[in-house]
Amino acid sequence: MKTHTISWSDPRAVAEAARSLSGLEFFQKAIAGELPFAPIGSLLGFVMVEAENGRVVFAATPAEYHFNPIGTVHGGFAATLLDSATACAVHTTLPLGKAYTTLELKVNYVRPITLQTGPMRCIGQVIHPGRRVATSEARLVDAQGKLYAHATSTCLVFDLEE
Amino acid sequence: MKTHTISWSDPRAVAEAARSLSGLEFFQKAIAGELPFAPIGSLLGFVMVEAENGRVVFAATPAEYHFNPIGTVHGGFAATLLDSATACAVHTTLPLGKAYTTLELKVNYVRPITLQTGPMRCIGQVIHPGRRVATSEARLVDAQGKLYAHATSTCLVFDLEE
Amino acid sequence: MKTHTISWSDPRAVAEAARSLSGLEFFQKAIAGELPFAPIGSLLGFVMVEAENGRVVFAATPAEYHFNPIGTVHGGFAATLLDSATACAVHTTLPLGKAYTTLELKVNYVRPITLQTGPMRCIGQVIHPGRRVATSEARLVDAQGKLYAHATSTCLVFDLEE
Amino acid sequence: MKTHTISWSDPRAVAEAARSLSGLEFFQKAIAGELPFAPIGSLLGFVMVEAENGRVVFAATPAEYHFNPIGTVHGGFAATLLDSATACAVHTTLPLGKAYTTLELKVNYVRPITLQTGPMRCIGQVIHPGRRVATSEARLVDAQGKLYAHATSTCLVFDLEE
Repeated sequence: MKTHTISWSDPRAVAEAARSLSGLEFFQKAIAGELPFAPIGSLLGFVMVEAENGRVVFAATPAEYHFNPIGTVHGGFAATLLDSATACAVHTTLPLGKAYTTLELKVNYVRPITLQTGPMRCIGQVIHPGRRVATSEARLVDAQGKLYAHATSTCLVFDLEE
Repeated sequence: MKTHTISWSDPRAVAEAARSLSGLEFFQKAIAGELPFAPIGSLLGFVMVEAENGRVVFAATPAEYHFNPIGTVHGGFAATLLDSATACAVHTTLPLGKAYTTLELKVNYVRPITLQTGPMRCIGQVIHPGRRVATSEARLVDAQGKLYAHATSTCLVFDLEE
Repeated sequence: MKTHTISWSDPRAVAEAARSLSGLEFFQKAIAGELPFAPIGSLLGFVMVEAENGRVVFAATPAEYHFNPIGTVHGGFAATLLDSATACAVHTTLPLGKAYTTLELKVNYVRPITLQTGPMRCIGQVIHPGRRVATSEARLVDAQGKLYAHATSTCLVFDLEE
Repeated sequence: MKTHTISWSDPRAVAEAARSLSGLEFFQKAIAGELPFAPIGSLLGFVMVEAENGRVVFAATPAEYHFNPIGTVHGGFAATLLDSATACAVHTTLPLGKAYTTLELKVNYVRPITLQTGPMRCIGQVIHPGRRVATSEARLVDAQGKLYAHATSTCLVFDLEE
């Protein structure tokens, strides 16, 4: 048996920070190490590495503990990264006082991910930055830019006091 | 800091078993404990609890290490379970010598998942068991049957020697 | 050259009726012939034949003028029926004063539709009747119940005065 | 009552041409007027105006006969154009002897389409030109480039003799 230990901070502190900052300020603090990572990032092993208005980049490296029963990295690894990248791309566009929730995510898997794939980047970009509904897309690529999966997503945007 | 340690067996053994059994035999052995779990199940904390022709059920309980930065369980938790349930529902219909890969997954998130949600079940069912292309759906519910997310998926079915 | 002529009434009258009735009352009047059909139904040749709370059925017969350039009925025929069925299933659940708009539709095509397919029915059903966001599904079948395409959809629900 | 008459040629001639030419040659002949339009294009009022390797553009103008019962252009208008653009973008990449079928299409509707929208263009582009499975995307915009709907699609590619 192989083992892997993850550690994380209380997610309520991060969620509180998310509510008291604009989306972009929140991510810039996270990238600068001034906020603890979200637990899911620790669990699956991914971090945000870039954030600007309407665009974010996550980095992750496939590991054996991401494997499915049929010998490749589980689709949930890509889906989780793509969900993060599409959602956070929308979040970067939100001013203080606005929040969002993801309504749906559609993922296309175009190549199997294995241990040989190496470090990956997941780039999310806003397509339609609507007042009530925003859409975005993301692509999961390896170090050479080869595409493994891509996604689109729909987010509902609302006032925090709602 | 909180910590969580996961453990898993070499996934090549499981993948080898998947290739030498029909889909349904493979899952029945897994449920009976005669095969090690796939690493992703250990990582995210879910297990298959039922499998019949065209239908599977997974069980999982949301935990703090599944949290996103905005204070709820990350969409990747639901997406991973729904990906597993839609894919394995198709796998149960495949005889020895056939394999499959997931082409796409579309997830709808209809309620936030929190620590209060408690134990969840994810039920996957085949919609169209095609010879080359199969489609399936899955629903993620709590112990009372309340719906939190649902998905549909498309799988490509092919001969193992391809 | 073959020709086909369609006719329709001013769609503003139908839209006005949609605003002044609950969803179910609106469809019951439409089925009873007390409201003119929507132009798109005349154009593509489909009619609503059943409506109850959370469920609608449309009927249509594939024709040569639905063909794509590669020799089968165009995917737009199925997509339009499935869009109608998923949206109207949500609409049946809305009281007077509420309206909706479709945010996204995902269609799976599982069998080609040809002239031999004959009369088809498209059955839409609500999955999640949320206060702000509703999801639904639909299936397009022939007279024997054989499945040709299926879909899920997300609708935003809002107050008419918004 | 208003009326609209469409006309079309036997679609078997077009389908036969599609089988005996590469995808790009087929579309170049269609754009040059050397092949009759597909009936669905006549019915809904859209034409292909550009085709190159991996990319196509359709043009269409919303009309009253495209209306749904709630006072805007029916989602099927956008879905049909987006289905055409995603599918034909894949078709442009196929050599003689290869064919394709659309497995799924996911459409996001981001703005209502009305009579005021005016002439629209639908641009389809290949994302992943795989040997067996290809994915593509499309955007539906007005004359100013404003986005109304976007889509992604998955196509199965196969040998014509299959």
